[in-house]
Amino acid sequence: MGGPLIETGAVGRRGGDGPDPGFYDVIHRRRDVRAEFNGEAVDPSVLERVLDAGHCAPSVGLSQPWDFVLVTEEATRRAFWSHVQRERQVFADSLEGEEAERFAGIKIDGVLEASLSVVVTYDPARGAPNVLGRHAIADAGLYSVCLAIENLWLACTAEGWGMGWVSFYREAYLRELLGIPDPVRPVAWLCIGPVNALQAVPDLERHGWRSRAPLAGVLHTEHWESGGDEAVQRLSGPARVGGGLPKAPPEGGGNGAR
Amino acid sequence: MGGPLIETGAVGRRGGDGPDPGFYDVIHRRRDVRAEFNGEAVDPSVLERVLDAGHCAPSVGLSQPWDFVLVTEEATRRAFWSHVQRERQVFADSLEGEEAERFAGIKIDGVLEASLSVVVTYDPARGAPNVLGRHAIADAGLYSVCLAIENLWLACTAEGWGMGWVSFYREAYLRELLGIPDPVRPVAWLCIGPVNALQAVPDLERHGWRSRAPLAGVLHTEHWESGGDEAVQRLSGPARVGGGLPKAPPEGGGNGAR
Repeated sequence: MGGPLIETGAVGRRGGDGPDPGFYDVIHRRRDVRAEFNGEAVDPSVLERVLDAGHCAPSVGLSQPWDFVLVTEEATRRAFWSHVQRERQVFADSLEGEEAERFAGIKIDGVLEASLSVVVTYDPARGAPNVLGRHAIADAGLYSVCLAIENLWLACTAEGWGMGWVSFYREAYLRELLGIPDPVRPVAWLCIGPVNALQAVPDLERHGWRSRAPLAGVLHTEHWESGGDEAVQRLSGPARVGGGLPKAPPEGGGNGAR
Repeated sequence: MGGPLIETGAVGRRGGDGPDPGFYDVIHRRRDVRAEFNGEAVDPSVLERVLDAGHCAPSVGLSQPWDFVLVTEEATRRAFWSHVQRERQVFADSLEGEEAERFAGIKIDGVLEASLSVVVTYDPARGAPNVLGRHAIADAGLYSVCLAIENLWLACTAEGWGMGWVSFYREAYLRELLGIPDPVRPVAWLCIGPVNALQAVPDLERHGWRSRAPLAGVLHTEHWESGGDEAVQRLSGPARVGGGLPKAPPEGGGNGAR
């Protein structure tokens, strides 16, 4: 079935010599924000662009299985914040020595400081039972919700805002706090809003908790056992990488409508 | 602990009147690509930018728990493609009537046509046992992997390429095909590469399988029960949305190091 197409050469690229540099600027500036929120009220038109970006995310079977609960009320935020502090203590109690000391200096949320909180949920019933692409992988719907969260995150960054994902909470607590019904599952509490600045280096790296690893360390070629260096050589070398295969005849039995 | 800051007003925005329009252009052009791959070899420097964008994604506790397996070999791709066709038939067999007819016309993968496949995995052991932010939500690491996948997807779009997520497969099959060891879990098979064009309308909408729902339908304010219309009115109205709360004294007991 046909439909309007978008020429790839003309979009998202300035002139055609490479991608829009603004896109990678957003990718690299994005931070998990805690201390830098300035608490200024959010511009509703900016917020609508950000939420719309989340809602434009890809989803399995076009199910769009997310919901966004906008939370601004002080009582709700303070209740959640107190719960987060208790969970912080649970984690702190599992640490010893230097690790415990390092964690003591790390801020883990901006719930009270951020202008707005957005709770993102997953509804497995949306589009069910025949969600196209989910019969073999039950978590595929949950994956879609995370794609929407990353769109929200990058849109906040593009708008000069910050976003921080708070994960020191129990799902059952958040479900009760906001009246989220079964089978909907809370996936994230996001702090969102204007910031004074973004850190150039992630908080956990600045505090010596953990450092970013190089890309080469997570690359493999063809098979799990062929790792890092070889993959980078292939990337850097002049050799052809990939290419579509010649058309094959349909293979035995299960070819459906291809 | 201090560190270099980035001024938000100067970055990712052209002039300060709003966000870089190129960013939202990428968000809106992104499609789940199947038929439009042209099979041209990928430029290694472009691929490295794309993979680096994935690797720059946020992750719980800065664990970066993903791996990227680059698959180009014909035997591997044909084997996976055959498996996908069998799973296609499993899903087709669950459909009846008009739904079955509609599905028959929908292409669900571009495994043979795309220049490259990238399999993304999740390693729960990375950074363990004390992954900061994961003690209360076991799936938080899996969520991080999906954020990386969305970065890959948007970067492909920004580069004028396409990406398609194939989810008609069993994890056990893919684990064996690529030799992925326990406890690493395959999360996605991604088809990547140059395309002739991107569809303006998602495939599943063009084929009448399912239509995109309006943003208002997934918005709630303060509580799950306060839905759509009210949230949109709040967004559109002149009223202040959100705002940081005045500092509260630490609350009972578990305040940790805040």
